[in-house]
Amino acid sequence: MAGGDVIGRARAIVGPAQVLCEPADTAPFLADWRGRYRGTALGVVHPADAAQVAAVVRLCAETGTPLVPQGGNTGVVGGAIPDASGRSLVLCLSRLNRVREVDPVGDSLTVEAGCTLAAVQAAAEAAGRLFPMSLGSEGSCQIGGTIATNAGGTAVLRYGPMRDLVLGLEVVLPDGTLWDGLRALRKDNTGYALKHLFIGAEGTLGIVTAATLKLFPRPRSSATAFLALASLEAALEVFSRLRGTLGDRVTTAEILSEAQLAAVLAHVPGTVRPLATPAPWCLLAEVTDPMAGLDLAGALEAVLAEGLEDGSIADALVARSEAQAAALWKLRHSVSEANRKSGIVIGHDTAVPTARIPDFVVRATAAIAAVRADARVMAVGHIGDGNIHLVAILPESARTTGKPLEPAAQAISAAVHRVAVELGGTISAEHGIGQSGRDALAVFKGPAEMALMDGIKRLFDPRGIMNPGKVVGPATP
Amino acid sequence: MAGGDVIGRARAIVGPAQVLCEPADTAPFLADWRGRYRGTALGVVHPADAAQVAAVVRLCAETGTPLVPQGGNTGVVGGAIPDASGRSLVLCLSRLNRVREVDPVGDSLTVEAGCTLAAVQAAAEAAGRLFPMSLGSEGSCQIGGTIATNAGGTAVLRYGPMRDLVLGLEVVLPDGTLWDGLRALRKDNTGYALKHLFIGAEGTLGIVTAATLKLFPRPRSSATAFLALASLEAALEVFSRLRGTLGDRVTTAEILSEAQLAAVLAHVPGTVRPLATPAPWCLLAEVTDPMAGLDLAGALEAVLAEGLEDGSIADALVARSEAQAAALWKLRHSVSEANRKSGIVIGHDTAVPTARIPDFVVRATAAIAAVRADARVMAVGHIGDGNIHLVAILPESARTTGKPLEPAAQAISAAVHRVAVELGGTISAEHGIGQSGRDALAVFKGPAEMALMDGIKRLFDPRGIMNPGKVVGPATP
Repeated sequence: MAGGDVIGRARAIVGPAQVLCEPADTAPFLADWRGRYRGTALGVVHPADAAQVAAVVRLCAETGTPLVPQGGNTGVVGGAIPDASGRSLVLCLSRLNRVREVDPVGDSLTVEAGCTLAAVQAAAEAAGRLFPMSLGSEGSCQIGGTIATNAGGTAVLRYGPMRDLVLGLEVVLPDGTLWDGLRALRKDNTGYALKHLFIGAEGTLGIVTAATLKLFPRPRSSATAFLALASLEAALEVFSRLRGTLGDRVTTAEILSEAQLAAVLAHVPGTVRPLATPAPWCLLAEVTDPMAGLDLAGALEAVLAEGLEDGSIADALVARSEAQAAALWKLRHSVSEANRKSGIVIGHDTAVPTARIPDFVVRATAAIAAVRADARVMAVGHIGDGNIHLVAILPESARTTGKPLEPAAQAISAAVHRVAVELGGTISAEHGIGQSGRDALAVFKGPAEMALMDGIKRLFDPRGIMNPGKVVGPATP
Repeated sequence: MAGGDVIGRARAIVGPAQVLCEPADTAPFLADWRGRYRGTALGVVHPADAAQVAAVVRLCAETGTPLVPQGGNTGVVGGAIPDASGRSLVLCLSRLNRVREVDPVGDSLTVEAGCTLAAVQAAAEAAGRLFPMSLGSEGSCQIGGTIATNAGGTAVLRYGPMRDLVLGLEVVLPDGTLWDGLRALRKDNTGYALKHLFIGAEGTLGIVTAATLKLFPRPRSSATAFLALASLEAALEVFSRLRGTLGDRVTTAEILSEAQLAAVLAHVPGTVRPLATPAPWCLLAEVTDPMAGLDLAGALEAVLAEGLEDGSIADALVARSEAQAAALWKLRHSVSEANRKSGIVIGHDTAVPTARIPDFVVRATAAIAAVRADARVMAVGHIGDGNIHLVAILPESARTTGKPLEPAAQAISAAVHRVAVELGGTISAEHGIGQSGRDALAVFKGPAEMALMDGIKRLFDPRGIMNPGKVVGPATP
């Protein structure tokens, strides 16, 4: 079928105004926010509800048209950007943005895929509850995208990634069938865990149109600390002591290397060094509790005092005001901005078993240096999850040497990934595979796992129309 | 191939002494512990390690021999019992019982499938950590079985079911390939969540041979309360208040109907009524915290005082000693024994969204009465999970009326299941499907979901040898 007919039929489904074809209109949907991935498309379709999504999917199935679902377009692996063929439809979920139900007794809420994470947080708050996921992009990322990528963020330590927060899903399958799996159940042992296949599948097995999510009690006490540490071994010891003593009160444990902190201080206005003496590592820890009026700052101080005494902590500060806590958080939230201003960023999303973090950082840093002696290495990450983002930064002058940068970037990433996998780790902890990790996936996964994943892709999407070229499966239908 | 040849080749793999064929030897493996399911088999095979499991699976794949994995044989749905054909091999995992690794820094341990749950708990405790799953059968159930059935128990409220406790799996696939998915990672977004397919699949997609599990800080403070409640609505209100105030400290919230409590008191020696006045419902709540020296009894009392004041709690008791707490727990743990002594037990494993529990109990109780006026109904369950086990008890005299009991039992279960599904619930919250739920599954799941599950079964196990007749797929290879 000619592309024009597909567009005509899509317009008949969603209304003429909801199919964009003019380059000026489609441009924002055809590139990611960092400008690393660009594609072209027949058009960009904005369905109003799950029934229209299903009708568009049926149209694509019938005509063999590749379909690229897109939420807030805040991903970093190119998972929501079409290829260059110009044959695809981009399907935007943003009009599916209703909060369908809030159930405070069952501690759950049901929202459509196009709700922003911030809107979901607000709906939970209005019901006196917490939806705990916290991401830098929460104002614009959509809940369907966070499910498709199994998003992480700074609260994973306490509440788990998106996978742990989903009770049920509504999904349009690749043949256009609408599967109602919107169960608000805490326990359900009736066969295979289908919802877990769609979570993290990045739209390659179906399109999430709504989800029932878990809610939690709101924290009513909290405290924030900033620690200076001599080594990653010390950081692990302190984290272990915090968790062993305070348990799940430890909501966040973010680690930054001194190079990373220095980059933030150098490039982001309004940031200040919290502790006078630089140390190789610093740790930002937050503890929260649903009970009101607890002295969590005191509890934190008691645990930290042990570490200060035995020397595992070089220096420490417990925030004495919300403003002071916010200033500490600003350091963490400024990392991306600081790195962009530091040079050419080659980021990674590896995780290793927690105990292997020190070994990983040493070996991966050396591996980067072996590829490019001019690379500076920053480290920022979630120490309790084993998820350290090692960021190689090349000087801006590297753009003007005449040598293309892409091979160097690929060699650096391959080296970092190799170290992670050798230590029992993963090449993607929370960002997903999308386009960027597709080749590496085939290298680092064993053949048994690749065969099972390819088989699942073929089973769910025999025509290969669902987000082709992402994760696994044929790159074109 | 003749059965004798299969046995001969199995003996060559695992050693002659590890293949049982004599009826006196095989009998314990061919019936479940309650005596409801019986089968026959070519033999019962006891491999020593994952490589031998893989070799036995390859033998079965090559010869089309049905293979029934069995752990501690403590299940209640017939999932580990072969059919009556006599063509199957039963594969016991009990010799795979090593603790391979304990990682206190990463809060994980890796154990083989044949370790009992109690052995896993003990290994965690030896490392100063908690493995939180708690089941009545923990002394004999094996960790592979708890993974295959996604077991629940009394700590699900706080720590989740087995699915939430598994970091990685080692699985022998139906073609005999050993898949090493033993990752000790808290976050891993590299494609489809294969481990979640094997968890809860009841051995129909492969055989779990080892698992990496999450560990937690050990509780160092705890308190236990027993409440008398006028209604299930009051129970939900009190639970909501407990959780909203104390958060995840609320580890357990078990509810019993007065009829259930009375049956325990009548039939189990050494049990005593904790509160003088009978009330329609009672709630056993436990709160724990990893911090030492906390006054959790005081915190509990403060929350309960509000409920006593506004009338939502009729009466309450907070245990003042470990002995008193143990006496309260004995009431809960005596339910199965009491029910067996009360008459002919027809149990159920439904869950509904928490807010629907009162409606479910009223309607399902009426539905049971409509089938059998002589049925007494007990209710016991995990109120925070929505998982209420409604138990219909027929008088022993019903055995001697000449009318067969099985149709009445089936009609009762169908009625209870129908009410649960109408209220957005499930026919199995924690026990699984096995043989007993197979027909009901096809009735209560929609066609889209059944088609996906059947497709996954065919994809993973095209020969249909893996635990045939359980959950989904053809009943024989």
